[in-house]
Amino acid sequence: MENQQVKQVVGQVISFWRDNNKNITDFFNKHADEVYAGAVAPGRNSGIYLLAHLVAVSDGLFTILGLGDKLYPELEKFIRESETNAGDQPEVADLKAKWNEINAKLEAEFAKQTTDWWLDRHMSVSEADFALEPNRNKLNVLLSRASHENYHRGQLVFLTRPTQG
Amino acid sequence: MENQQVKQVVGQVISFWRDNNKNITDFFNKHADEVYAGAVAPGRNSGIYLLAHLVAVSDGLFTILGLGDKLYPELEKFIRESETNAGDQPEVADLKAKWNEINAKLEAEFAKQTTDWWLDRHMSVSEADFALEPNRNKLNVLLSRASHENYHRGQLVFLTRPTQG
Repeated sequence: MENQQVKQVVGQVISFWRDNNKNITDFFNKHADEVYAGAVAPGRNSGIYLLAHLVAVSDGLFTILGLGDKLYPELEKFIRESETNAGDQPEVADLKAKWNEINAKLEAEFAKQTTDWWLDRHMSVSEADFALEPNRNKLNVLLSRASHENYHRGQLVFLTRPTQG
Repeated sequence: MENQQVKQVVGQVISFWRDNNKNITDFFNKHADEVYAGAVAPGRNSGIYLLAHLVAVSDGLFTILGLGDKLYPELEKFIRESETNAGDQPEVADLKAKWNEINAKLEAEFAKQTTDWWLDRHMSVSEADFALEPNRNKLNVLLSRASHENYHRGQLVFLTRPTQG
């Protein structure tokens, strides 16, 4: 039987990820589409580039967690390329639909997993390296991805008119 | 005996907090002092206000975790007040010394604690509310504070010349 405290803590990290997702989802609903085309600060990325980047990174969870293929591998350019090189901006509505689809599918996959699964290695670390660094498990990937959303949310808030930092 | 998996996951969250602290510490060392006086984006907070805010929030961990009094309660104004109302900017070197002192003292306190302690309620939730929402434990506070550092680090990177988002 799974230890209840482990279940509790693993569940907290999943909740943390879910809450951060919700904060980004709220951001998709916050502005008129043209606002997202603007840069978050002078010479920086546009809102839509950052949202596309977040969608692509969440899509990457399928592969790094061993849950299957990415749904939208064509979005990888928003991870690998700068905004200048990534080309055309996608539509906000399209990105939002993909964001919701990816997260719903991830939730469905997560619902099937055990705590042992979460504490096992992720797909980008070898068994040998994992034996030396047991923190490099699937749960840590989710933790770091959730916090990565918060990093970019700190930038996305600058799309609004300056009334707070 | 403590379950090893619980110890593992609690340890991962503490490591996550430590890694985020280190990222902010690196930021304290990154620029000449005058750079921090600038706003991270037009009409937004200065770098030094954000650093003072992060020091004050970390200092608040002592009280919310039930580990004693804040070391620098005079910094609370960088949580409660906007930059305009907070008054004079502190010195970067002074903030950095406080940041290091607070984190070292928190590390020493954390080293004494059990996993049961981490999964017990924090000081801002009542026993009745905690019974209904067991996620509102000390570990969740640390998780959320670590991610809060990442939120503002996403803004602090804008102090540098625009070469990336």
